[in-house]
Amino acid sequence: MVRADGRDALDIRPLRLELGFNAWAEGSCLITVGRTQVLVTATVEEKVPPFMRGTGQGWIQAEYAMLPRATQERTHREAVRGRQQGRSVEIQRLIGRALRGALDLSRLGERSVILDCDVLQADGGTRTAAITAGFMALWQALLSIHRKSPFHAPPLKGRLAAVSVGLQNGQPLVDLTYAEDSVIGADFNLVRLSTGDWVEIQGTAEHRLFSRTELNALLDAAEIGLSAIDTIQAETFPEGAVLIES
Amino acid sequence: MVRADGRDALDIRPLRLELGFNAWAEGSCLITVGRTQVLVTATVEEKVPPFMRGTGQGWIQAEYAMLPRATQERTHREAVRGRQQGRSVEIQRLIGRALRGALDLSRLGERSVILDCDVLQADGGTRTAAITAGFMALWQALLSIHRKSPFHAPPLKGRLAAVSVGLQNGQPLVDLTYAEDSVIGADFNLVRLSTGDWVEIQGTAEHRLFSRTELNALLDAAEIGLSAIDTIQAETFPEGAVLIES
Amino acid sequence: MVRADGRDALDIRPLRLELGFNAWAEGSCLITVGRTQVLVTATVEEKVPPFMRGTGQGWIQAEYAMLPRATQERTHREAVRGRQQGRSVEIQRLIGRALRGALDLSRLGERSVILDCDVLQADGGTRTAAITAGFMALWQALLSIHRKSPFHAPPLKGRLAAVSVGLQNGQPLVDLTYAEDSVIGADFNLVRLSTGDWVEIQGTAEHRLFSRTELNALLDAAEIGLSAIDTIQAETFPEGAVLIES
Amino acid sequence: MVRADGRDALDIRPLRLELGFNAWAEGSCLITVGRTQVLVTATVEEKVPPFMRGTGQGWIQAEYAMLPRATQERTHREAVRGRQQGRSVEIQRLIGRALRGALDLSRLGERSVILDCDVLQADGGTRTAAITAGFMALWQALLSIHRKSPFHAPPLKGRLAAVSVGLQNGQPLVDLTYAEDSVIGADFNLVRLSTGDWVEIQGTAEHRLFSRTELNALLDAAEIGLSAIDTIQAETFPEGAVLIES
Amino acid sequence: MVRADGRDALDIRPLRLELGFNAWAEGSCLITVGRTQVLVTATVEEKVPPFMRGTGQGWIQAEYAMLPRATQERTHREAVRGRQQGRSVEIQRLIGRALRGALDLSRLGERSVILDCDVLQADGGTRTAAITAGFMALWQALLSIHRKSPFHAPPLKGRLAAVSVGLQNGQPLVDLTYAEDSVIGADFNLVRLSTGDWVEIQGTAEHRLFSRTELNALLDAAEIGLSAIDTIQAETFPEGAVLIES
Amino acid sequence: MVRADGRDALDIRPLRLELGFNAWAEGSCLITVGRTQVLVTATVEEKVPPFMRGTGQGWIQAEYAMLPRATQERTHREAVRGRQQGRSVEIQRLIGRALRGALDLSRLGERSVILDCDVLQADGGTRTAAITAGFMALWQALLSIHRKSPFHAPPLKGRLAAVSVGLQNGQPLVDLTYAEDSVIGADFNLVRLSTGDWVEIQGTAEHRLFSRTELNALLDAAEIGLSAIDTIQAETFPEGAVLIES
Repeated sequence: MVRADGRDALDIRPLRLELGFNAWAEGSCLITVGRTQVLVTATVEEKVPPFMRGTGQGWIQAEYAMLPRATQERTHREAVRGRQQGRSVEIQRLIGRALRGALDLSRLGERSVILDCDVLQADGGTRTAAITAGFMALWQALLSIHRKSPFHAPPLKGRLAAVSVGLQNGQPLVDLTYAEDSVIGADFNLVRLSTGDWVEIQGTAEHRLFSRTELNALLDAAEIGLSAIDTIQAETFPEGAVLIES
Repeated sequence: MVRADGRDALDIRPLRLELGFNAWAEGSCLITVGRTQVLVTATVEEKVPPFMRGTGQGWIQAEYAMLPRATQERTHREAVRGRQQGRSVEIQRLIGRALRGALDLSRLGERSVILDCDVLQADGGTRTAAITAGFMALWQALLSIHRKSPFHAPPLKGRLAAVSVGLQNGQPLVDLTYAEDSVIGADFNLVRLSTGDWVEIQGTAEHRLFSRTELNALLDAAEIGLSAIDTIQAETFPEGAVLIES
Repeated sequence: MVRADGRDALDIRPLRLELGFNAWAEGSCLITVGRTQVLVTATVEEKVPPFMRGTGQGWIQAEYAMLPRATQERTHREAVRGRQQGRSVEIQRLIGRALRGALDLSRLGERSVILDCDVLQADGGTRTAAITAGFMALWQALLSIHRKSPFHAPPLKGRLAAVSVGLQNGQPLVDLTYAEDSVIGADFNLVRLSTGDWVEIQGTAEHRLFSRTELNALLDAAEIGLSAIDTIQAETFPEGAVLIES
Repeated sequence: MVRADGRDALDIRPLRLELGFNAWAEGSCLITVGRTQVLVTATVEEKVPPFMRGTGQGWIQAEYAMLPRATQERTHREAVRGRQQGRSVEIQRLIGRALRGALDLSRLGERSVILDCDVLQADGGTRTAAITAGFMALWQALLSIHRKSPFHAPPLKGRLAAVSVGLQNGQPLVDLTYAEDSVIGADFNLVRLSTGDWVEIQGTAEHRLFSRTELNALLDAAEIGLSAIDTIQAETFPEGAVLIES
Repeated sequence: MVRADGRDALDIRPLRLELGFNAWAEGSCLITVGRTQVLVTATVEEKVPPFMRGTGQGWIQAEYAMLPRATQERTHREAVRGRQQGRSVEIQRLIGRALRGALDLSRLGERSVILDCDVLQADGGTRTAAITAGFMALWQALLSIHRKSPFHAPPLKGRLAAVSVGLQNGQPLVDLTYAEDSVIGADFNLVRLSTGDWVEIQGTAEHRLFSRTELNALLDAAEIGLSAIDTIQAETFPEGAVLIES
Repeated sequence: MVRADGRDALDIRPLRLELGFNAWAEGSCLITVGRTQVLVTATVEEKVPPFMRGTGQGWIQAEYAMLPRATQERTHREAVRGRQQGRSVEIQRLIGRALRGALDLSRLGERSVILDCDVLQADGGTRTAAITAGFMALWQALLSIHRKSPFHAPPLKGRLAAVSVGLQNGQPLVDLTYAEDSVIGADFNLVRLSTGDWVEIQGTAEHRLFSRTELNALLDAAEIGLSAIDTIQAETFPEGAVLIES
């Protein structure tokens, strides 16, 4: 099967990771995947939220937003509406959990990394792009900490990447565009470490229920996409390898 | 293995469904599962949100909140803080998606059902309890519509139930209490129809990554819990069977 | 005169007080009066608001809300609207004042009790039900304090109850339902101690002005209802008597 | 007994009503009572809130606020905090109810009058001053309507005034200053028509409970103050007499 | 050219400054300029905002609001809408900057003065009236500080006044009314010290662009109006002269 | 004098305008000036705000925000705080006014253009960069309208650019970096058309007052910078010339 943009069912879109895009942040990455573009910055703070104080552990938190014209129709600016949309809240909680899953928080020390994920342009897959780029920004920020005050043991359990997959006429498609996502049945967002371990599985079938057989086919497809992303991540930041447990 | 409350690993907690608990709502259900207690009401409105107008389809929407002292420590009242917590927003989006998945929206007609899920007391599993009870309230509300203006074809694809499962020392536990949830590794919330089809799978491994083998064991365990819940649902409202596609 | 539900003019509705309904709170009471149902929990905090610090006195504060489908028509959830309605604010200020009036705050010590009053179902009289049940929850919470760290002198001046009365064709009715309240002239909410002293009198005559003669007849009627409620309160929690000044 | 400002127990403070203080509003009154100063404007709108549409009746609504430095200590500006304080909400509801009680809403026609009550300086009694001046502004606004489109029957049931009273050492005091209010026992706000009928009675005894005998003494005292205010109201706007039912 | 209110092009409107209008504030001034009326109070606080702590310098901050019926059409109350309008925010930032420009903040010491500028009635020029009156209120507040704890050197660099000017058919007009402002081309707000130095120049030409020649003519005209205002300021508060650097 | 980055006093920083940066918007421009980077998108809507309806004229509106890590220290996200900062509000009002000044709104027709100005990275001059890029995005959006439905007469009065200037030791500096802006005396933001007419002049001297002689020197300097920017604007979008009045 050939898709509207010429890809095969299991291909990801062209992916570019620009590490250090931002001049001020401790870590940053502009990810471009097809026409989706997300800018992630990582800010290191030498404190943790109240519920983590005194635990000796660190914390990772994410915020997610779309610029008003990231979408084909302009959406209202959340700051003008006076609150974040439910969708943004749900996504930033996913991003935070996923990145905490990649890390041994006790090795981080009592400090926080805040990941600001701002979607400049959206064409499907913004939450998985934010996780993939968020890992890069976090990784770079951790190296900046490490250079000043080395970690005793590598804080990262592996490299983290995320991808979307969906079922079209019973066949798995990897890395969905907005147009594909709109017509697809079940829709999955999957987050995995380079070690092969899973961090988060979210599958929803508002429009078409799925069986366990289909679930397995979707996970197989996702693994192919995740491996492709992981290779690019590793090549983009080889000097970060020292921070990853082996 | 015996759990703190004497259950076996694959047992759900004692479950009670009080249908029609509320005197005013078109549908309602008070669910009590162990010490968790959630009151769900279903309100029928003869209109749909703007984005659904003119589609001929209906809509299901959920709102979720906890009473301040549903928890062991009092939490601030969201109405006083001036906004919903991120956790509430994420949960109510899950509940809405899950219930829409149980329904053929085009058979519902251009009307909405709003599910208000208020946690009176929390001891783990409030989101899955809300889905299980939300289905009962929705089912009752649909029957009240059906009696006035019969559906041409059954709007429901099956009965819907949800359960949580987790991994403890590599072994799946079904229907976690708050205490179990706090110490567990991977944490899954699973939503399934009585037909055996899956509607939503959410698995998160903030604290302990999981393999595909473990995922399969967790799904097997969940299916046992979901079947136990489904039996109680079917017995609680036999007159609703007419609304379910067979 | 016989009322729609068969009561005489001076009768209160069937009243049930379920003390300790909530598993976590220091005090709690589910009150059912006719079809009105309010759940009140009392939370003890070992601190007082800033304006009371250093006074050696305690504080009582109330919050009031209705579940969206407590009413015959669904009302918007305050947390979703982003603020409490004016009616809720006015009522919770009344509840707080009334309960502070029942207490010698200097005997309480520098601690607070927060009363969360959530209306599960409304059929008139929710604010007076919240005060009556709020007293029970407070009383239970005070006993839990007393058992750990006995009060030197009873902190309560008496038992506190509240009731609504109204004028129909010039005749006082006690404990109004929603239907009665809607057609009535003057509408009073009255709060009294078991000692016979008054704590709060609120009478409003938006629709029918009243004379001092009518005011006296209304107070006479209210005293009958308040005594009936007081008897049930005393029987429900005899072990609390130790906390009441005599 | 002589009070700190030289008044007798039953005297009101010097009272000035400046009708038409504002150049733009249909009605307005600046009230100065001792050092308390409230500016009320009345705005006529040829529409009613949604819940009154089609009833053929009018509506009166009030908003109340204090300038930040109306008080001896500066209070935060509500617009900057992002919401009204509970106290403001409670007071504006009282003002609205009181003024609706003075009027036959069915004679007003489907129009609204909005009363903006802004406290320029506060020294006790701002809510009763707002009602007294609010009546003047409403009265003037009604006359401006009447001149363009005469009412078939007088819309007002009488002149409306409000006063505060309190108990000091068992003796009633009329029109309390802030200093008196702070040390007093029971605190009452009373609203009465010039016909002698009562519109609202609010008595609260957070600090000192009261008996029915004391209640009667308080009402007797209030009637003296209310009559003194009524005389000044009648003299200030004799041309308004035509709008009052006789 | 004669203007609608009989003034010549370079005349300001009749101006009255009532110093000490408010009984509680450390400084206050009610300014009446034509039909525009603004009440400004100055509150002294013995602390500074976080970003100024430890600098040894003071701070001046302004808040600006209009009463709902200050305008010919009623505007919504900002506290009820839940936030300040953009126009209010922009104006209060201008007022704060202008007044800080009149002062040597290092001579003020680590304390703040908060200027609350509330427009009772608006007929053009409310922001410049607020600056002119704000200076008076600040000046009075500084003298009250000086009497308790004398400044080592005069904290004020001069007297501060503000005026609006505009171009009508190429000719400058001084101190515009609302009606003039609505039909004018370029619109300037100018803030100057009595020393002749400028503190703020804001010129906007949404409707008619301007040349540098016109800019110069506007500034010449403004200087005439500013000198007229300055004379009245100096006469109103001669005892304040001691606080001004010479 | 040579500046920290090697520029002469009257030089602007290296300037790049990337027209059409966004794939969805009718117009867009990413401006990079030194280390300042602002993304502006222009959205065309075929309606105008309520206050412009029926006038036959169009409207231009701007929104401005900074990404949290646009600055050297992270700032809180406005959507999370629940409202825009005062600074953002003030700036977006300036941008809107400036762009409306460049246009003959009556030739635009009853439609709106919304300019979203998002600062990706800030190093001084973000508001002037937003105006300069905002003009480019608006220009491109107007051409897209023109191609579908040609304007009868060119809607633009000229090309619009903005620049900041300041006084350092009495000497004007053009296009200030953040570091320069922090130590400078008077600070001006100036907006001019390519015709030489001025649209907005904002000069503020919180820290160092200025004379009219200095004002003239500042305007001379600004004209040099504005001409340099204008040349780049003209070269970037030569096909837009048709929309500019000559």
